[in-house]
Amino acid sequence: MLDKILEEYRRIWALNYASSLLGWDLETYMPEDDSQLRGEAIANISTVVRELTLSLADKLDKVRDEDLDDFGRGIVRVLRRSVRFYRAVPREITEELDRLASQSAVVWREARRRSDFKSFEPYLRRIVELEKEVADRLGYEGHPYDALVDLYEEGMTVSELDSLFNVLVPGLKKLLDRVIEDEYFPPTHPLEEQEYERSYMEKVNGELLKLLDIPQGSFRMDVSAHPFTVRISSKDVRITTRYEGRDFRATMFSVIHESGHALYELMIDPVYEMTPVGSGVSTGVHESQSRFWENVVGRSREFVRVVYPILKERLPFLRDYSEESVYKYFNVVRPSLIRVDSDELTYNFHIALRYEVEKGLIGGKLEVSELPTVWEDFMDKYLGVRPKNHAEGVLQDIHWSQGSFGYFPTYTLGNVISATLWSKLDGFSQKVEEWRVEEIKNFLRERVCKYGALYPPKLLLNKTLGEAYNPERLIQYLSHKFIDRD
Amino acid sequence: MLDKILEEYRRIWALNYASSLLGWDLETYMPEDDSQLRGEAIANISTVVRELTLSLADKLDKVRDEDLDDFGRGIVRVLRRSVRFYRAVPREITEELDRLASQSAVVWREARRRSDFKSFEPYLRRIVELEKEVADRLGYEGHPYDALVDLYEEGMTVSELDSLFNVLVPGLKKLLDRVIEDEYFPPTHPLEEQEYERSYMEKVNGELLKLLDIPQGSFRMDVSAHPFTVRISSKDVRITTRYEGRDFRATMFSVIHESGHALYELMIDPVYEMTPVGSGVSTGVHESQSRFWENVVGRSREFVRVVYPILKERLPFLRDYSEESVYKYFNVVRPSLIRVDSDELTYNFHIALRYEVEKGLIGGKLEVSELPTVWEDFMDKYLGVRPKNHAEGVLQDIHWSQGSFGYFPTYTLGNVISATLWSKLDGFSQKVEEWRVEEIKNFLRERVCKYGALYPPKLLLNKTLGEAYNPERLIQYLSHKFIDRD
Repeated sequence: MLDKILEEYRRIWALNYASSLLGWDLETYMPEDDSQLRGEAIANISTVVRELTLSLADKLDKVRDEDLDDFGRGIVRVLRRSVRFYRAVPREITEELDRLASQSAVVWREARRRSDFKSFEPYLRRIVELEKEVADRLGYEGHPYDALVDLYEEGMTVSELDSLFNVLVPGLKKLLDRVIEDEYFPPTHPLEEQEYERSYMEKVNGELLKLLDIPQGSFRMDVSAHPFTVRISSKDVRITTRYEGRDFRATMFSVIHESGHALYELMIDPVYEMTPVGSGVSTGVHESQSRFWENVVGRSREFVRVVYPILKERLPFLRDYSEESVYKYFNVVRPSLIRVDSDELTYNFHIALRYEVEKGLIGGKLEVSELPTVWEDFMDKYLGVRPKNHAEGVLQDIHWSQGSFGYFPTYTLGNVISATLWSKLDGFSQKVEEWRVEEIKNFLRERVCKYGALYPPKLLLNKTLGEAYNPERLIQYLSHKFIDRD
Repeated sequence: MLDKILEEYRRIWALNYASSLLGWDLETYMPEDDSQLRGEAIANISTVVRELTLSLADKLDKVRDEDLDDFGRGIVRVLRRSVRFYRAVPREITEELDRLASQSAVVWREARRRSDFKSFEPYLRRIVELEKEVADRLGYEGHPYDALVDLYEEGMTVSELDSLFNVLVPGLKKLLDRVIEDEYFPPTHPLEEQEYERSYMEKVNGELLKLLDIPQGSFRMDVSAHPFTVRISSKDVRITTRYEGRDFRATMFSVIHESGHALYELMIDPVYEMTPVGSGVSTGVHESQSRFWENVVGRSREFVRVVYPILKERLPFLRDYSEESVYKYFNVVRPSLIRVDSDELTYNFHIALRYEVEKGLIGGKLEVSELPTVWEDFMDKYLGVRPKNHAEGVLQDIHWSQGSFGYFPTYTLGNVISATLWSKLDGFSQKVEEWRVEEIKNFLRERVCKYGALYPPKLLLNKTLGEAYNPERLIQYLSHKFIDRD
């Protein structure tokens, strides 16, 4: 039965493969006039995927779990999740959400430009209504938001997220206050204003890929408006970056971040290719890999030692900056308004806010109209900054216009897991400083990557790390880095 | 009923759209290690297309043709052709052909490198067997080859091709002999050896695209090992070229040739998008557009007048060559061994040979083992050249390794139709010389392009040109150009 299921699954696999390429191309090389037809094509392929998945339902119902090994159980678990989603949420709802998402993206962009929350409000209200309906149809035990966050992080709940943020927010607040008092990590750095030549940074980024030793025959890097990673197959993983021409950290860390996502996909056991467990298990675990490489490795003092000579060779203006200064540039600490520009210490406050907002909206405790006030008060209370307008406040992220409710918390889950990985990696400092990159990669492969989606994320983390989603780990890691500084 | 068919067809459209992009990416940006999985993905998508097409069969059977207008009849005709193919040719055969094609491509490449026909022979023999079976299953009235050529040129038959080549071959032979005697068009030209800087030719090619006024928002050009055109949608048509670094005609005319294919797709009436009649009607008609732009326009004296100043500005070495000399460079006439390097006068001999071989193999009158001898004798007889080895003889083309039997004749059909178009375009010389490109494009749009696949090719050509596949037109055009020279 499982063989038959896997055989039929190959069509779904092929359609997902194609959709991934369509999405990549949309952001990189597609002629602009094709955008509407591209949307049509992607939507129609989704419909076929839905139908092919539902056509597996009977076979999946008949599978006797006790006959299965881990591989079989993983396959059945992932497919049943899809079937459950398609059974619960009718095409009409996902289609309305898709249509709304593409309209809202335009409205949101314009609203942000004009800093005008009112024009976006009715769209957001309708999206929240639909997301609530999705949650109701999917069902939940505790909180309706559970149903949504589970779509990104299998098994995650409001109850667990509440416990996590209840530890994290006060803990990080204390840390942040001390770090600011210490004044070792500066709130600004002259390199933030320094312009660079694109061709130089292209070379630096090429060197970073070499450092990470990404298999070149299965990988490529291109340019897009917003950096992203896409897995097309285990032999075709692509990242993008962008060149803003100023503040070279941005492109550099986007490359390391996306490479982290890419390495996850590239290190999944190739025997899972063309099966439902062949890609990363959850958004949070995925983010743990990108954050591990970007922050834990990339912004470490040891990595700066490795990368400084490379940077100095390629970027003439670095002659005026010491290794120590570059380390501080990579680790400016400054409570600020924009999530994507924030540092390791303040980042999770941005997420805590968004989590509270999403939980409130989906749970019916918060109205869309109250959002700006909630936003401003939170920023003021925790980071001591107040948005002057909606563009640098509630309108800054694209996620809600896309109906991605439940996504934001996984950024913090990723940070927490990346810190847990750090705590479990013996000889981290030495491995980074001597750049024994294969050892670091092997550690991640064995603890996370190779399993693909074989086990649900929490089970996986408990199995391989002995714990999952432990907020103390993030506090420990950040204390070690920003307070102890050893 | 038709609405329902069209609605369901959108899924097939989306899968074809995706397959086109997968194919394009395979030749341009795909990381090399993914090639096997790419093959799997494409094959699986083909399977879904087959099933979705067959699922339309009942509805198509029920459609009453007398209720339909031209649009409806076109839709039903094209879909019924697909259904007929899938019903007649079981998956096992197409899958074996696909597998064999990917193996044979490797074997053929190696065989060509070593000029070793024997190692390719067993593969070719099996491919011919399978092609014969396809022909038998599809059925035919006259000759089994009819069934195969119809897959590329709907309605074309051996009987019609025989008549055509029986006029063309002796007519062209007479012409060729006179042109060689005349000595106006040289057999070689020093520019064939001239090296160029790639960046210069990239600029020239950019200028060519501007000259052709291709809508930039729906088009792109990339680099691949072999130039090709792909239509992804009416708003996304892509061509490729390559830069060999020597003999700049090659990249220049590949760009014009592929742009001709691209313009065809871009000029199809956009109301046909997402329907079965939304792309070019046949391989021969498609080739008429590429050849019209490449040869009839691009190698004309008038076009040289237009393009010479552009070339001279970009290519420093052209200072030593007059406009007249460049015209001769574009029109070197030299009986030679390799089809793809041959000129307008000798090209169709290469096709006539391949047509005779394919007809013989499929009709059972010729054995694969006899191929080299037949090949060498034909070349000797018509072009007075004899291959010294199989690499420059029977092994030169990839087509047969891919099972593309029936394709070759459409190159000559394209030449014939392009000459017919030339004969019907009033004021051709003036339009080209004054570069009234929109008038030329409008002519092609009205006579060919806008219809998409609405009518079968022969009906279309008779409707809009008053004649179809008339070999005399090609002889007239070539006489005018190479003998009259006015």
